[in-house]
Amino acid sequence: MQPVEACAMLFGRLSHGEAVVEKIDFAPNKLQSPVRFEIDPAEVAAAFTEAEEDGLDFVGLFHSHPAPAAPSSIDLKGMRLWGNALWLILSSTDGKLAAYQLMEDKVEEATIRIEKHTV
Amino acid sequence: MQPVEACAMLFGRLSHGEAVVEKIDFAPNKLQSPVRFEIDPAEVAAAFTEAEEDGLDFVGLFHSHPAPAAPSSIDLKGMRLWGNALWLILSSTDGKLAAYQLMEDKVEEATIRIEKHTV
Repeated sequence: MQPVEACAMLFGRLSHGEAVVEKIDFAPNKLQSPVRFEIDPAEVAAAFTEAEEDGLDFVGLFHSHPAPAAPSSIDLKGMRLWGNALWLILSSTDGKLAAYQLMEDKVEEATIRIEKHTV
Repeated sequence: MQPVEACAMLFGRLSHGEAVVEKIDFAPNKLQSPVRFEIDPAEVAAAFTEAEEDGLDFVGLFHSHPAPAAPSSIDLKGMRLWGNALWLILSSTDGKLAAYQLMEDKVEEATIRIEKHTV
């Protein structure tokens, strides 16, 4: 049996076309499906309200799926709905993690970098 | 009931004191504990072998814990064992995510950044 797709909202800071991730809000997959995900609008609203109180911007969505770490055709539809959100996709088949952003209707890959704080 | 701590190994590329994360290998928490984690050495060995085949470096460890997103005293002991690995810590109480690295026995915080590919 395949695991249910995991999904989460990412919050942090957006600036100059890059995002710093400071918070991950995992949410139950409303569909309880191994191949699709959906987050309850009430969960989305609550997460956004809390992030606003923390002074954090919405930066993107994370989900796992049992395919390569690239947007599926369904993800692409979702990307169009979510504007310029970053999409972090974890392949549950090979563990690869990748990030994507829709820019002028073109899928661009992004880099997930961890680096020493520079103040 | 608190959830069992999640744990994973991060692989990617290490260069100039920064890491690019390309793969996350989630592993069962051998202790099945809500406050401690341990990965089976056989899981570690298998993940390292597979990463080597993919040409990826080990860059760090991820785990969740029911406390602020900062290393606990137990994490600190683990950090000393794992050398210069990055430690990504997700607080299961407030969803905050942060990254740390031990440098000359001092805990330094790192930034998790997602940015457009630059070639």
